[in-house]
Amino acid sequence: MLIIFTGDGKGKTTSAIGQALRAVGNGSKVLMVELVKGPWESGEDKSSKKLGPSFKIVKKGKGFVKILGDKLPFEEHKKAAFEAIQYSLEELKGGEWDILILDEVWNAYNLGLLSKQDVSSFIDGALPLCDHLIMTGRGCPQEFIDRADLVTEMKEIKHPFKTGVCAAKGVEF
Amino acid sequence: MLIIFTGDGKGKTTSAIGQALRAVGNGSKVLMVELVKGPWESGEDKSSKKLGPSFKIVKKGKGFVKILGDKLPFEEHKKAAFEAIQYSLEELKGGEWDILILDEVWNAYNLGLLSKQDVSSFIDGALPLCDHLIMTGRGCPQEFIDRADLVTEMKEIKHPFKTGVCAAKGVEF
Repeated sequence: MLIIFTGDGKGKTTSAIGQALRAVGNGSKVLMVELVKGPWESGEDKSSKKLGPSFKIVKKGKGFVKILGDKLPFEEHKKAAFEAIQYSLEELKGGEWDILILDEVWNAYNLGLLSKQDVSSFIDGALPLCDHLIMTGRGCPQEFIDRADLVTEMKEIKHPFKTGVCAAKGVEF
Repeated sequence: MLIIFTGDGKGKTTSAIGQALRAVGNGSKVLMVELVKGPWESGEDKSSKKLGPSFKIVKKGKGFVKILGDKLPFEEHKKAAFEAIQYSLEELKGGEWDILILDEVWNAYNLGLLSKQDVSSFIDGALPLCDHLIMTGRGCPQEFIDRADLVTEMKEIKHPFKTGVCAAKGVEF
């Protein structure tokens, strides 16, 4: 089943993580591959380790693209994104994982790090190899929504950053 | 901070659970109190136990209301919902929890299990006692959206149940 969490609101990645926690409790094995985000350790990294080998989070991003002082050549970001989907496919071929989460893939697509063809071929290859493929990120294009089985748009109704509150540890990262 | 996940789409409860996993990794203690849902053990119950005492899920619901063969008197459901918010407040008064998740509270409200006054008084009492209060469920009324700091509407774009696929263990429960 292809599951997509998209939209501009908070809750896409956390929903995928919550899904992972639920599935792991029911005996599934979940691999989460993060694109775009940098290698810093987040709360979910620390917690996932406590859940044992059934939930693995792998960071394949090189950090934010073109913002917050990013000086990395764009080609390096592109390479990292392409490696992330190749890695995911290789892992699925190993037959170990029931669920694959590809986090922030739509951001990577919209930033131009992955082409439509890259993503499309990835889905073709990945979907038969897992029970569920969960793809998150803002701005999922309509043709992938058409292809998905389950799609939720996380719509921002209100966000405190807009009123000047700083990112809260434990909530935003 | 008052955080609300509402809307008709999938991802409200899982997002709250993902939030819990993230926060627990950063050293917070999270209590999740479930309303409406019955006492059966879900995937997240099993996983949360592996995370140790920092993430506790407590079931205060009596199962689905008025559907799927529910024969329980309505007053019993009301009593259970009221006890859930009283219990939550008592737990917060103990000073142990940083984050409280009140799951399916808007469903309970819309079913008539809790009054506007019940919910409003609960928020008044709970908010000063925790860092974050997360309230999930369909159909959050506008006046609580006005009061919240962060609100995401999980909007259903596509759901396989509508096309006849059964609930998938690990994804829906």
